[in-house]
Amino acid sequence: MRVLICPDKFAGTLSAAEAAAAVAEGWHEVAPADECVQRPLSDGGPGFIEVLAGALDGRVIPVATVDPLGRPVRGEVLLAGGTAYVESAQACGLHLLTEQERNPNTTTSYGLGLLLAAAVETGAAEVAVGLGGSAVNDAGAGMLAALGAGPVDGSGYALPYGGSVLGTAAGLAGTPRLRQVSLVAATDVDNPLLGLHGASNVFGPQKGASRDDVLRLDAALEHFSSVLERAFGVEGLAARPGAGAAGGIGAALLALGGRVVSGIGLVTRLIGLDAELDTADLVITGEGSFDHQSLRGKVTAGIANSARDRGLPCVVVAGRNETGHREAASAGVTETYALVEHFGSLGLALGEPARGLREIASRLAQQYSR
Amino acid sequence: MRVLICPDKFAGTLSAAEAAAAVAEGWHEVAPADECVQRPLSDGGPGFIEVLAGALDGRVIPVATVDPLGRPVRGEVLLAGGTAYVESAQACGLHLLTEQERNPNTTTSYGLGLLLAAAVETGAAEVAVGLGGSAVNDAGAGMLAALGAGPVDGSGYALPYGGSVLGTAAGLAGTPRLRQVSLVAATDVDNPLLGLHGASNVFGPQKGASRDDVLRLDAALEHFSSVLERAFGVEGLAARPGAGAAGGIGAALLALGGRVVSGIGLVTRLIGLDAELDTADLVITGEGSFDHQSLRGKVTAGIANSARDRGLPCVVVAGRNETGHREAASAGVTETYALVEHFGSLGLALGEPARGLREIASRLAQQYSR
Repeated sequence: MRVLICPDKFAGTLSAAEAAAAVAEGWHEVAPADECVQRPLSDGGPGFIEVLAGALDGRVIPVATVDPLGRPVRGEVLLAGGTAYVESAQACGLHLLTEQERNPNTTTSYGLGLLLAAAVETGAAEVAVGLGGSAVNDAGAGMLAALGAGPVDGSGYALPYGGSVLGTAAGLAGTPRLRQVSLVAATDVDNPLLGLHGASNVFGPQKGASRDDVLRLDAALEHFSSVLERAFGVEGLAARPGAGAAGGIGAALLALGGRVVSGIGLVTRLIGLDAELDTADLVITGEGSFDHQSLRGKVTAGIANSARDRGLPCVVVAGRNETGHREAASAGVTETYALVEHFGSLGLALGEPARGLREIASRLAQQYSR
Repeated sequence: MRVLICPDKFAGTLSAAEAAAAVAEGWHEVAPADECVQRPLSDGGPGFIEVLAGALDGRVIPVATVDPLGRPVRGEVLLAGGTAYVESAQACGLHLLTEQERNPNTTTSYGLGLLLAAAVETGAAEVAVGLGGSAVNDAGAGMLAALGAGPVDGSGYALPYGGSVLGTAAGLAGTPRLRQVSLVAATDVDNPLLGLHGASNVFGPQKGASRDDVLRLDAALEHFSSVLERAFGVEGLAARPGAGAAGGIGAALLALGGRVVSGIGLVTRLIGLDAELDTADLVITGEGSFDHQSLRGKVTAGIANSARDRGLPCVVVAGRNETGHREAASAGVTETYALVEHFGSLGLALGEPARGLREIASRLAQQYSR
């Protein structure tokens, strides 16, 4: 029997690869003869590089970069098949900050610019940037600064890090040092940059923005998007789908001539998931929190849909399950198991998630293996 | 009777102006007919602008800048007599950070660059920068970045904030936007940039540097000083007195063609202290901690010397006194009073310093007024 194990990350506890490994281990304890194919997933957010590095025949280059507050942190460039991949969350990730440190007024995407610079220096013709899980709201201004095109005021002086100061930007310091690479933004966020559905309103609060911060940031990004349009000779930037991804880094990448592609689509194509689905007998996917958003999203729901199209059973294993049986079933999910219910304890679900996944997988193997 | 009241700041509790006002108030409670001349002092560190603004007929321009971690903070430019004055501590001050936040590996002088830019934009022919009390150890690299001449790596990409990354600098991004102003660094720190008596070794630990940090920072600044020498065509930069002031901002200002002057010398000249000493009957000076360093320093000891030269009694009021009577007397100090002894309590000395100074001043008036 062939089991395809393709979870997303369990945010806060396990990476997608760790979750897949735990499920495979638990399955093999009961049914060692079965083939467990591990294909951890990412939508461009945290884990993007780990997932691709595990599946592609590439080279991971360590890169010194900085976090959203400018502190040193280690990042990577994955070089594979003529494309250099970077993950914005390695430099801009919300997981890099304590709750007290979250402040999208001043957090910066500068570290992503350093990763991008390293990617450009590899000589790759294409650079693909995974977006998602970010703590920043600076429309990529920090990223542009690291590339030599940071925002400047009316007298030509550089602005400091952060989103809220961008209302005073009068232009950019220069031309970004990108050596004509082709840029790809990999994300499944298709929000515009501004307004009610924009980066500041939708994602600002979870990054630490107060109501006043959101209004100030939205106004600052509105001004800065016109600066970007003028500097790069583009129009309608703010309204383009994905411009609001990763605190507006999407807009900056679009201004630089990049194109937005579905993150999960890119990943599933690169790891050859369709072919695996064609030969699997059972699909096990999952994520930290399986909720209504998951059912409208592209990772778990996308996998479940693909499984149903092929007549395959699809089991979801999650940290917590907040969906009803009927709505999950209508999305193509056969069964759902959650760590919180398995342990009867949120503490154990967060403290020993790998053990929980192993135990659930063993039960699944008793049920499904033949 | 004419009493000259010229204290330095009481670091952590009172500004120099607040300390002077408290002493004058206490004196006048007992001897309302006496003339109390308040001339609070600064050596270029915290209080530099407040002290000069109180004494000069100038204009204070508010300037939005950032603190050593890049967070928004309010600074000022004082425009007086054709010179624009800025205070590095308003952007780089150790008092802007909690103890946990202190980290000279990553703190930046960027905010000072923003103040300097605002000073240049006033059109003043001369810009005087007060140095001291800083939390940074980046040899002014952040300051240069805000002026368009930040450090870049071998491929021309901008480096992030902080001191420890400067070991990887290969050059500067451009020419600093200074419009040929004449630069003055006002400080009484005459340490060189590097080595045992340099910025990292002497001042790094109080800014949060571990032993390893000190070694790394010293090496990074050694490398960066050669970058500065090459970029600005100067020699022997690191060894020049004052190059080590304010975490090496002194070196950057010297590289920009600036000259180092004594901070207390500049301040006493600008506020006309010599003329006041000539007509005073008693001098009251002071500072937070009166210790052996004070007796070798230029503020309190300098005032005491000037008083002795004129045959004037000089009383020191301090938060705490750690000198002996004889050594203080040999420096020209007639008497010393400390808040800790006055209250018999460190808590009260820190909690109600202004009341303590008023009470001590009242006692002094009973003793000296005639």
